[in-house]
Amino acid sequence: MSHFNYIDLFGFLAALLTTIAFLPQLYKTWKTKSADDVSLVMLILFITGLICWIVYGLKIHSIPILFANIVTFIFNFSILILKLTYRNNTQ
Amino acid sequence: MSHFNYIDLFGFLAALLTTIAFLPQLYKTWKTKSADDVSLVMLILFITGLICWIVYGLKIHSIPILFANIVTFIFNFSILILKLTYRNNTQ
Repeated sequence: MSHFNYIDLFGFLAALLTTIAFLPQLYKTWKTKSADDVSLVMLILFITGLICWIVYGLKIHSIPILFANIVTFIFNFSILILKLTYRNNTQ
Repeated sequence: MSHFNYIDLFGFLAALLTTIAFLPQLYKTWKTKSADDVSLVMLILFITGLICWIVYGLKIHSIPILFANIVTFIFNFSILILKLTYRNNTQ
């Protein structure tokens, strides 16, 4: 830990925050059973981007890129599934 | 361009997609004047994370990290402002 500096701390904090941020969205969607205001195009573009990040992480052998993007993918894919489920329920 | 490879292409595509993804969300929120289903906690955590990415990008002098996160910050900060504006309007 002696080589750990405050620049790494910002990078770690950044990755942590932009990953766990989607947990309250997942919880809110699950609880309210509504995601009408959440853009379907956003979810599809974002999830496609996350898959590209995962491929990139695999290719450059970066564990932090892989870990952060796999977790973010799981959260956003779950939000997408919930959105599609609740949309079908109200039809 | 001779050194450009398909690994870089995945990284570039990943950054592009996870950045522009928020544009349709911004457009949807502006058009429907509603963002009740969008989690406020998500926006606050995500924006805080983006600020950390920008600080990290400045510290390590990474133009791609800076560029992608500044654009994503602008989109998400605008969504936050719209969400708070429309919430106040309906009170």
